Amino acid sequence: MEAARTAIAPKPPSLDALLALARADMAAVDALIRRHMDSPVPVIPALADHLIAGSAKRLRPLLTVAAARLVGGRDDGCLKLAAAVEFIHTATLLHDDVVDSSQLRRGRVAAHLIWGAPSSVLVGDFLFARAFELMVGAGCMPALEILARASRVIAEGEVLQLTRSHDLELTQDLYIEIIRAKTAELFAAAAESGAVSAGASPERCRALRRFGQDLGLAFQLVDDALDYDGDSGTLGKNTGDDFREGKATLPLLLAMQRTGLAERDFWLRTVDRRDQAEGDFEHARELVRQTHALEATLDLAQAYAESAKAALAIFEPTPWRPALEDLADFAVMRRT
Amino acid sequence: MEAARTAIAPKPPSLDALLALARADMAAVDALIRRHMDSPVPVIPALADHLIAGSAKRLRPLLTVAAARLVGGRDDGCLKLAAAVEFIHTATLLHDDVVDSSQLRRGRVAAHLIWGAPSSVLVGDFLFARAFELMVGAGCMPALEILARASRVIAEGEVLQLTRSHDLELTQDLYIEIIRAKTAELFAAAAESGAVSAGASPERCRALRRFGQDLGLAFQLVDDALDYDGDSGTLGKNTGDDFREGKATLPLLLAMQRTGLAERDFWLRTVDRRDQAEGDFEHARELVRQTHALEATLDLAQAYAESAKAALAIFEPTPWRPALEDLADFAVMRRT
Repeated sequence: MEAARTAIAPKPPSLDALLALARADMAAVDALIRRHMDSPVPVIPALADHLIAGSAKRLRPLLTVAAARLVGGRDDGCLKLAAAVEFIHTATLLHDDVVDSSQLRRGRVAAHLIWGAPSSVLVGDFLFARAFELMVGAGCMPALEILARASRVIAEGEVLQLTRSHDLELTQDLYIEIIRAKTAELFAAAAESGAVSAGASPERCRALRRFGQDLGLAFQLVDDALDYDGDSGTLGKNTGDDFREGKATLPLLLAMQRTGLAERDFWLRTVDRRDQAEGDFEHARELVRQTHALEATLDLAQAYAESAKAALAIFEPTPWRPALEDLADFAVMRRT
Repeated sequence: MEAARTAIAPKPPSLDALLALARADMAAVDALIRRHMDSPVPVIPALADHLIAGSAKRLRPLLTVAAARLVGGRDDGCLKLAAAVEFIHTATLLHDDVVDSSQLRRGRVAAHLIWGAPSSVLVGDFLFARAFELMVGAGCMPALEILARASRVIAEGEVLQLTRSHDLELTQDLYIEIIRAKTAELFAAAAESGAVSAGASPERCRALRRFGQDLGLAFQLVDDALDYDGDSGTLGKNTGDDFREGKATLPLLLAMQRTGLAERDFWLRTVDRRDQAEGDFEHARELVRQTHALEATLDLAQAYAESAKAALAIFEPTPWRPALEDLADFAVMRRT
């Protein structure tokens, strides 16, 4: 896997340029996030902080800010939207971890294991509502429309994943449809709403939407690959979680297709019936490696990252453009 | 209890006048609800329909429509908001039932017992997002602000209830604060947003907000009383649910205060530690009756209903005004 990846981009890409350009904006976004996660009900800021403090990268709000600046936006209109995007994302994570009974999130014990699932559900609702208050504060109805729609599409994607993801016959197309909804839609809406709030032309808004969507697809594909090849210590969540939940992500789908009848009983037991024993994950990971399912997943991620970068071609080469191109490369090359 | 109530309002109030006035509008709201709960993901409409079809009264969207019409609104601006209000309410119910592990809702088996808690959480998120899409469609930013704020206040109220409701020392003031947030806020926002969408003056919007809030308080107080005095068959949920969950509602709070040390061990065991046995609910209900805690709860509900009606005094006596006054009386006199 390392060989395939380094062959494509010999120099490890980094977010440094983007983070430097966005430093002041992201500090302002961070202050908005801190202020708006507060509540007189003590559990709310405690639980929200547990999750939000664990997020070092803030990729999605960064995308909103960068899109607004790339199209020449100079005012603060995008900052509240960026904070709202992070709240929508955090609300989704809280509910996801309850739904999946996950143990670890962003390198910390999942919130529902500390405060209980009921608090996680309700604080998720609080953050989601706060996101809409922030969007109303931004005062841009088209951005509100984009993010309201995205929130609905994400929920549809989550339900689709919940009801279909243990399906051994899941096709690659349906898998892509699921991750387009549950992950890429928020990246797309984050970028598009930033551009819209800065008054960009429809063509430029569409280009940034495509950049966000393809970036989000690349990001999720790499996430799904890391679940079979990452290091729990640096990953901030457990390797093998997807497999243990019987979640048919692309590496697993491809391994299942490529092993054919030979391993059919193994997949039926471990994924379909989720009847797993010691060593099953290691065996599954070995099959994923043998069938080159990881390389195929990462090649597809790379293709989406290239498509994302291509969407930026219409923009002037201000410093924001290469910084966003680096973000697309980073999404594919990251190890965490 | 019956005597106290019939002494105040000898003729049983009904919603007939209000429902007749709002018939065409509510049919349109219903069509919007049906259309917007649809999704290509099959579980979503199935689960949403289970809950939404069970709601005969649709009190909250009725309030939005009636407020808009009372202030002279003639266009369709309030209809999408009304549908959004019902979606926010339904999303809250879905999450509440997961949080409380409730068995019965609107006379049907709770959705999470049929489709599982994960689906209930995620379909709640879907409906919440759909509510915001509908509000964006209504195109009225001040109404969006009111309903976004209400959604956040409801979540805060739910968390407050979750963390404090087993507290034997809960004061009546804090109890009122909890139900003002978790229940009355949506009634208030439903009425206020209807008025705002129809372009009413700030004074009229405030009056309708107060009407909604006091109506909501009366409504919740009666709900809490019915949990000790209703009939599960007609109530659509189980009598005694609050007690079994150790939820310190006003009837229980008053009974605990009024029985003093004599029953302290009983309350500590059943409410604080939620260690309950056969016959405990019947004993608690008997103590609630003996201490006249139900009458006190219903008297307070009556006072809020009167305050709600008083808020309508500034409006012209169009047919909508007495119909809304009937709604306030109905909230107190209802048996279901």
